[in-house]
Amino acid sequence: MDFVKVAEEQRIAHIHLDRGRSNAMEQQMIEELQQAIEAVQKNPGLDGLVLHGKPDFFSAGLDLIALYAYNEGEVRQLWYTFLKLIYTLVAFDKPAVAAISGHSPAGGCALAICCDYRIMAEGDYIIGLNEIPVGIIVPESVFQLYSFWLGKANAYRFLLEGKLFNPQDAMKIGLVDEVVGAKSIRTAAVRQIGKYMQYERNAWRESKRQMRRSLIAQFEADHTDTVEALLKRWWSPASRSILKAIIDNLQQGSPR
Amino acid sequence: MDFVKVAEEQRIAHIHLDRGRSNAMEQQMIEELQQAIEAVQKNPGLDGLVLHGKPDFFSAGLDLIALYAYNEGEVRQLWYTFLKLIYTLVAFDKPAVAAISGHSPAGGCALAICCDYRIMAEGDYIIGLNEIPVGIIVPESVFQLYSFWLGKANAYRFLLEGKLFNPQDAMKIGLVDEVVGAKSIRTAAVRQIGKYMQYERNAWRESKRQMRRSLIAQFEADHTDTVEALLKRWWSPASRSILKAIIDNLQQGSPR
Amino acid sequence: MDFVKVAEEQRIAHIHLDRGRSNAMEQQMIEELQQAIEAVQKNPGLDGLVLHGKPDFFSAGLDLIALYAYNEGEVRQLWYTFLKLIYTLVAFDKPAVAAISGHSPAGGCALAICCDYRIMAEGDYIIGLNEIPVGIIVPESVFQLYSFWLGKANAYRFLLEGKLFNPQDAMKIGLVDEVVGAKSIRTAAVRQIGKYMQYERNAWRESKRQMRRSLIAQFEADHTDTVEALLKRWWSPASRSILKAIIDNLQQGSPR
Repeated sequence: MDFVKVAEEQRIAHIHLDRGRSNAMEQQMIEELQQAIEAVQKNPGLDGLVLHGKPDFFSAGLDLIALYAYNEGEVRQLWYTFLKLIYTLVAFDKPAVAAISGHSPAGGCALAICCDYRIMAEGDYIIGLNEIPVGIIVPESVFQLYSFWLGKANAYRFLLEGKLFNPQDAMKIGLVDEVVGAKSIRTAAVRQIGKYMQYERNAWRESKRQMRRSLIAQFEADHTDTVEALLKRWWSPASRSILKAIIDNLQQGSPR
Repeated sequence: MDFVKVAEEQRIAHIHLDRGRSNAMEQQMIEELQQAIEAVQKNPGLDGLVLHGKPDFFSAGLDLIALYAYNEGEVRQLWYTFLKLIYTLVAFDKPAVAAISGHSPAGGCALAICCDYRIMAEGDYIIGLNEIPVGIIVPESVFQLYSFWLGKANAYRFLLEGKLFNPQDAMKIGLVDEVVGAKSIRTAAVRQIGKYMQYERNAWRESKRQMRRSLIAQFEADHTDTVEALLKRWWSPASRSILKAIIDNLQQGSPR
Repeated sequence: MDFVKVAEEQRIAHIHLDRGRSNAMEQQMIEELQQAIEAVQKNPGLDGLVLHGKPDFFSAGLDLIALYAYNEGEVRQLWYTFLKLIYTLVAFDKPAVAAISGHSPAGGCALAICCDYRIMAEGDYIIGLNEIPVGIIVPESVFQLYSFWLGKANAYRFLLEGKLFNPQDAMKIGLVDEVVGAKSIRTAAVRQIGKYMQYERNAWRESKRQMRRSLIAQFEADHTDTVEALLKRWWSPASRSILKAIIDNLQQGSPR
């Protein structure tokens, strides 16, 4: 794998996102991450996973620069693959903890909220679902996932304005569970997995599946209508020009 | 229209409720409001709506004095029309803000919670769903709508006792988003619509529809059973005598 | 009835759990409780119920010592009967208040959260759903019931760790509504029932049924898959040894 690295230690899989400076995700990286998670799910020698980013960035979300250059077929495939990744992580039934080492907007936040527990690094970082300011439609399934943690009212309010949060505010609204110094994230994540692992593992996993049934059903459903609406919006002149402006800004300010 | 006035300004429709002192709603007013909202939905020259009441009253809800005099067919028609109005406002996909200028119990509160954002005037005003004390059944759809903003536990608790809130308490529980002086409501409402309008409008609207899918489905469902149960209760001697007592009180204390 | 005593006073049924020191529930007690609740539901002379425990114990939940000795058919029957009891109390449409006189973990907590209102005695008592530490699967229906009061995020977090709360913390998270001295519980419970009874009873009851529709549907659904998964787990060596350790501990520390 090029963009996802997996290390195993004491029955825990540490999956490290590793693409460029900001872990922005494109087709290959999403596929690799999907395969890595499935492998942990299937491996009886592994009891849980920690999802890691890199210093200052957990993940910047989808790689808009790469996606902007995709043709119609590639963009369609990207969205189906990304929704399948989210489904796989939502349906993952062993303990999963997100070690949010830095910025985690949009798709980065989406990965984090699939996990059972989120630990974020202290610092001037942002997290949240900001699809609307980027001109991307929020699918119902993603709203339900955000609502699971924030409640419907706050999920609705924050999504309508694409609100982003610093670590402390994210903790206040229930978006992250713990804020620690960057150097302590891994230890805190392993400690939390350990808490879950003290219980009878099959009862724990079946309970997790039971409690996520309606979420899993949301992501298992047919996404054709949602993806086609997303694509129609994606290729509209208005959205293209928003994307172009964001990309110009990204390329000027912060070379990857 | 007699009881609903619409003014357009800078691509925003200002819908003013205008019936008597308290904006109590009967058949004609509900139909007019329904038509006004549909017209804003369809008009490509309009980007959002603000729903206004009048000084001291946003809306007192359904006009119990008028309804008390309705015959069986009229009451049945009233309830179907009112549920259709709520459906239309729940499914309205442009930005909608309630400018709650005063009292907003029962049906007045129902209108307000269909909107995306609620601004309430400071003062000795009440807001909340108080159907049960009036002897009216709370339909599941209305519970789900109240729960969307308050969470299920609080919606359940408050509905079971028909609890009403002053503006500050309403803000604490998430029933309103902002409390301002009466003279500042319009400005605050336009400012909030402007916040929403800065985003690509099609992505915003499709996202709003996605996030309201389960609410919309609740109000799209067949209401026959619910309305028949409501009517059975409505015509029962116990409910008639509660209504009579409320009406006597209204007519003595506060002429409309 | 041996383990459930019912007293009627001023149109309110007081149902007293009465089995051993801790009101741990086995097959007969569950059946008796189910019958007692159904009788209150059907009796037009009764307007509500208060569910009482005994000093220091509301109910310790299922009687693990008794269940450990059950054969396969008995355990299967126990689970179906218990889920039917929960269904009956969730679907009970008159006012119901839990007078939580002491400890109320697991199944004791499950009974309490079926009621409309919970009053807990001050003191060093615990309440909460701690199935996972006992090696028992949390069914989706029970998660939805817990979520109704706590919200999904907290219900999920607390269930994954089987967290138990003292009365004050239980009130903070919305698991109980009121904490009073043990001697005042009965008075507080009757007062709360009285608050509900001041409203037109049919409108109140039909509203309660409407607001609980999705909960009722959860418990009305076919539980075969859930019970079979529970049983498979129940009879696994890992769960048997957890149960054995818990039972040894119970029998040494606190004879019933």
